[in-house]
Amino acid sequence: MAAMADAAPATGEDRTPSPVGEAAHVVIVGAGFGGLSCAKALAGSRHRVTVVDRRNYHLFVPLLYQVATAALSPGDIAAPVRRVLSRAANVDTVLGEVSGVDRTGRQLLLKDGGRIPYDVLILATGSMYDYFGKDDWAGTAPGLKTIENARTIRARLLRAFEEAETTTDPARLKALMTMVVVGGGPTGVEMAGTIAELARYTLARDFRRIDPRAARVILIEAGPSLLTAFPEQLQRYAHRALTRIGVEVRLGVKVEDIQPGAVIAAGERIETANVVWGAGIRAAEGAAWLGAAPDRLGRIPVGPDLSVPGCERIFALGDLARLDQDGAPLPALAQVAAQQGAWLARRLRACSTAALKAGRPDLGRFRYASRGDTAVIGRSSAVFVIGPWRLKGFLAWMLWGFVHIYLLIGFDHRLSVAGQWVWRYLTGERGARLID
Amino acid sequence: MAAMADAAPATGEDRTPSPVGEAAHVVIVGAGFGGLSCAKALAGSRHRVTVVDRRNYHLFVPLLYQVATAALSPGDIAAPVRRVLSRAANVDTVLGEVSGVDRTGRQLLLKDGGRIPYDVLILATGSMYDYFGKDDWAGTAPGLKTIENARTIRARLLRAFEEAETTTDPARLKALMTMVVVGGGPTGVEMAGTIAELARYTLARDFRRIDPRAARVILIEAGPSLLTAFPEQLQRYAHRALTRIGVEVRLGVKVEDIQPGAVIAAGERIETANVVWGAGIRAAEGAAWLGAAPDRLGRIPVGPDLSVPGCERIFALGDLARLDQDGAPLPALAQVAAQQGAWLARRLRACSTAALKAGRPDLGRFRYASRGDTAVIGRSSAVFVIGPWRLKGFLAWMLWGFVHIYLLIGFDHRLSVAGQWVWRYLTGERGARLID
Repeated sequence: MAAMADAAPATGEDRTPSPVGEAAHVVIVGAGFGGLSCAKALAGSRHRVTVVDRRNYHLFVPLLYQVATAALSPGDIAAPVRRVLSRAANVDTVLGEVSGVDRTGRQLLLKDGGRIPYDVLILATGSMYDYFGKDDWAGTAPGLKTIENARTIRARLLRAFEEAETTTDPARLKALMTMVVVGGGPTGVEMAGTIAELARYTLARDFRRIDPRAARVILIEAGPSLLTAFPEQLQRYAHRALTRIGVEVRLGVKVEDIQPGAVIAAGERIETANVVWGAGIRAAEGAAWLGAAPDRLGRIPVGPDLSVPGCERIFALGDLARLDQDGAPLPALAQVAAQQGAWLARRLRACSTAALKAGRPDLGRFRYASRGDTAVIGRSSAVFVIGPWRLKGFLAWMLWGFVHIYLLIGFDHRLSVAGQWVWRYLTGERGARLID
Repeated sequence: MAAMADAAPATGEDRTPSPVGEAAHVVIVGAGFGGLSCAKALAGSRHRVTVVDRRNYHLFVPLLYQVATAALSPGDIAAPVRRVLSRAANVDTVLGEVSGVDRTGRQLLLKDGGRIPYDVLILATGSMYDYFGKDDWAGTAPGLKTIENARTIRARLLRAFEEAETTTDPARLKALMTMVVVGGGPTGVEMAGTIAELARYTLARDFRRIDPRAARVILIEAGPSLLTAFPEQLQRYAHRALTRIGVEVRLGVKVEDIQPGAVIAAGERIETANVVWGAGIRAAEGAAWLGAAPDRLGRIPVGPDLSVPGCERIFALGDLARLDQDGAPLPALAQVAAQQGAWLARRLRACSTAALKAGRPDLGRFRYASRGDTAVIGRSSAVFVIGPWRLKGFLAWMLWGFVHIYLLIGFDHRLSVAGQWVWRYLTGERGARLID
């Protein structure tokens, strides 16, 4: 793929839906938080914009764990990219998979042989789960990045209880009733807490032979604490809150192996039919397209204006980019990507067509400012850091809910998700208990 | 499979979740409208009941076309069987696939080797689409019976518009913008009308190069009219209403062949990337388990008490059963299955444990009474027959909506679906535009 960087100009069909004409053409790869906020902030500008994604929807990944635990439907947290950008007449959407970049010919190359010429190229392909070189773990221990992941986890969780209800083998019963979550970051904490609640509230009265409340939920973290991005006081609260709803938290424990049916950690073999991975991520495809040297996590090192050094006219942002600030790389958070996307768009808006056509405009320096951080633990329980405030418990949980409803794209999604949350809070029921 | 009928008693594990004890054990296969209404009507009776289905959910098939056209999410129309029957302490739910029936040993046999002993066995496995012997058409022209079907159709429809937006081949563009629906019954009419609306309202402003309103929707029916189960006046109304929203209705046209990329009908080759099949159904698995001789459509002929002649203690109902009334077979409708299920349950409730254990109780004769029939054509347009009344247009459409909301299982689904319908009516937006 890297060889593409210096290939002869491609000859495939131009996939840009609208004629670009005299305007400068900004091409954005990826419609996650970074790419989409960039496209939205370029709406109505003098430049033509094309957003390319291999999915037709923007996925609100922070709520994906609720799909995995049967609380929400995929459609509730997915907004069609085309609909989101429908009113921006200068922005096109293309459903397509990128195969490489022809830097000499200034064209994005698609797997179907098409190509999209660009004046400015912005890569925002995001990240995926990383198994520290043990890629064969992925089948047994799916991460939580895509709707397919969430459906797989949901089906396995629900199927485990179904099979537990009819099995007569005590060892199998024990494995089916044991759920292991690897990784003590926000995703791991949210998954472990929600699985415990699914068993304790939603499924509690639905079975005859088993008691779902007896399910073991084990959260394994290699480091010394949960939620390392949060203040110590909130870390301890999260630990207590998880323990209270029945999660076994194991800190300082390294996962040595994951096999179909078992997790081996700290010398112990835990028989389990359900493993969820939330331990590490790496950047998605992108660096290889440019022939750029990625860092240890596959990220493309970028300059303070998010440009890729040595690659004229090309920018990278979000989880795909590595940008150090105050001596440390910026974290892989939706809000980092969204701020970078919006910042880059504002700076590009200010540029003339001529400046973008000529390449390498002067954009200034991006600086990230945290707007707060939050993780939910369970019913009525969350942590929330915003400015000097550290909140926990019910208030943090309400705030978590409001913020996530606010951040969801699409008014209908907001209504639907809010309605389902209220309903679930009142009844404990979950509307999307499908095994498929 | 039929050989199972006289096999030696099976030796697999008993999969009945709760001990049956002295009670008679009624086993129901299938949690569709027939099986579920039977199980619900047996709740709280003196008999023990076990419901077996290979899915963990009851699917509200009459609204499946709304999933296929991105209006609803699968979770909106699927209710977990276990949850629906949660309060009925005498009813168990088993997720499992049936492989046969051991009539001598009175056991239902499961594919995983398990078995479920019964005193009374009720088969309600429903129906599937029938391609008149051309089973290779199924891949190109999916029917609309399962969530997987609906997701496939949704993805193909949305992907066709996406590809049309970027293709530069005029022939391909034409095929992508042509949708063919085969079959002029309620499913065909509903699909054709909804696809036309998807193109005209929902997608209209989302594309730059193509105009989705230019999409051709062709509805092909071999017979001389649409909706043959309705009075002529309503058939003609449906025809006019479909034509008005842009559907090309072709009556008296036989489909001769379906190939990847084309439908051949009445000698004409229609190039199309989207074919939906709604032309014929046949009974699902069931007859072979009993070694019973099915009718032409795979149905098991049953006596007036729904019992299978020659098969003691075994009943069949719904789409799987063939029962003639007033000289014609009862139609394959949800309400026929539901009435049969509820009737059979009431009659079995009245029987003593001893009578069921001894086999062949006297149950009387089932008689179907139509509670009305309805089909929706599009926004503000439906037909509705109830008793002496024939309604069409807006009033029929409102009534159609109320009835379907009422029939949905689960209060949360009712709220969610009603909310999404109101939202869609006001904005034309559809919340589940996922290609997956």
